[in-house]
Amino acid sequence: MGAAPLIRIDDPSDPRIAGLVSIKERDLIGREGRFIAEGTVVLRLLAAAHRSGRGIAAEAILLLESRVAGLGDLLAKFPPEVPVYVADAGVFDAIAGFNMHRGVLALGRCDQLPGGDALLARLPASSLVLAACGISNHDNMGSLFRNAAAFGVDAVLMDQTSCDPMYRKAIRVSVGSVLTLPFAREGTAAELIGRLQAAGFALWGLSPRGETDVAEIPPAPRTALLVGTEGEGLPEAILSAVRTARIRQRPGLDSLNVAMAAGIALHQVARVNGRI
Amino acid sequence: MGAAPLIRIDDPSDPRIAGLVSIKERDLIGREGRFIAEGTVVLRLLAAAHRSGRGIAAEAILLLESRVAGLGDLLAKFPPEVPVYVADAGVFDAIAGFNMHRGVLALGRCDQLPGGDALLARLPASSLVLAACGISNHDNMGSLFRNAAAFGVDAVLMDQTSCDPMYRKAIRVSVGSVLTLPFAREGTAAELIGRLQAAGFALWGLSPRGETDVAEIPPAPRTALLVGTEGEGLPEAILSAVRTARIRQRPGLDSLNVAMAAGIALHQVARVNGRI
Repeated sequence: MGAAPLIRIDDPSDPRIAGLVSIKERDLIGREGRFIAEGTVVLRLLAAAHRSGRGIAAEAILLLESRVAGLGDLLAKFPPEVPVYVADAGVFDAIAGFNMHRGVLALGRCDQLPGGDALLARLPASSLVLAACGISNHDNMGSLFRNAAAFGVDAVLMDQTSCDPMYRKAIRVSVGSVLTLPFAREGTAAELIGRLQAAGFALWGLSPRGETDVAEIPPAPRTALLVGTEGEGLPEAILSAVRTARIRQRPGLDSLNVAMAAGIALHQVARVNGRI
Repeated sequence: MGAAPLIRIDDPSDPRIAGLVSIKERDLIGREGRFIAEGTVVLRLLAAAHRSGRGIAAEAILLLESRVAGLGDLLAKFPPEVPVYVADAGVFDAIAGFNMHRGVLALGRCDQLPGGDALLARLPASSLVLAACGISNHDNMGSLFRNAAAFGVDAVLMDQTSCDPMYRKAIRVSVGSVLTLPFAREGTAAELIGRLQAAGFALWGLSPRGETDVAEIPPAPRTALLVGTEGEGLPEAILSAVRTARIRQRPGLDSLNVAMAAGIALHQVARVNGRI
């Protein structure tokens, strides 16, 4: 049953699981490079990320006792130095701080993830990047990663005003893609654009006022799709610096949700470039 | 300032705004044909729905006093028999039951909305329908409506196991499209399919195992796109009764979110049928 022996936790204040206490509140304070993974699907991707040596590691796993029997294969994917704690429902909920029905939690650590330049330097000659500016909602951030993974994006680059994809809810909504898809979050939107252009990317800003129908974005060895903040979208200063694409829709309505728009555009670009 | 005179509310237990009290809890109990609209964009669509005579009416509007000055044009879209109440921040939050930053609420009523047969009988010869079975999440329901409106869907038909689109959060996530897009929710999935086939719809079930790439769904005067429950998708019994389409994506990942998949497919079908 798993690589590490199971360690029973009977006291919610046991220091060994201190990093998993009150995880809802913990999202809002300094997390010091730690993150929370919830559920078996995300845990599976955490195991893959841990093994990949990308700078993402599992520190501890906490399971509801009733879940242990079914998770042997999954636990075996972690190395034996990752402790696996087990608690009953009352202790588990007291640790997590709410009624955590899934009963599967892990604490992870991300150390010195590579910056945007390093990420871009590693990409193959044919690659697809999703770039995002000013994304403030963690659900949208998670959905962007989920879609990026589905359509074969090689890396996600964000400006410094975007929210942290390592936030618990973003990881959950991404179904763990945040842990496996390389990303960097740094600098201004202008720096992000400059970096992508210098790396030879055909850069397309998505906007309801875009000039080119997304279905007519031509194939290119390196394509980057750029999306902007919820509500306002990409500012004019950025739209004037890149080629722009739009998703046709009925007039007179609010524009599509940013993750939805990115999903539609990535599906088109991935198809035309033979990536899916 | 608006069609109706403003009525000041100083007591959160004032019976005139009883329908707007504790709206979070109200979602979970019998709503007796009432619904809650939040925010100015949704209120604008409620005004349009009220005027359209579709069976959706505004009963009362409640505004935070600081919001009143900017909303004259919007209030003028409602007839004078719809009362407009105004409250300060403390009273407003005490009514709503939580800190409602937007400060714009309305209580609406839906009376005897037409059933699926009546809806289909009214559709033009060229039409696009979104059909859904077993949608249980209100965010997904709202996103489905938002996408359906964006891509020119004429009606949304759901089976009886799908959740109620008139739930507060579904209305909000739909950005009000639930109030303006005709829908019916009744019967079994098999009855839903039979009804659409009898009305001459080319019916396409969306599934990761679908036979036809969504980008290759041929144009047809009447097309209906069918989506299934989160997680499981459409059951085999339904998939074997309709033509099936898939969205190409990278293998080995969870399938796309249901609203995302519907958005991508609707975008394709709306394009090929010249609806956007």
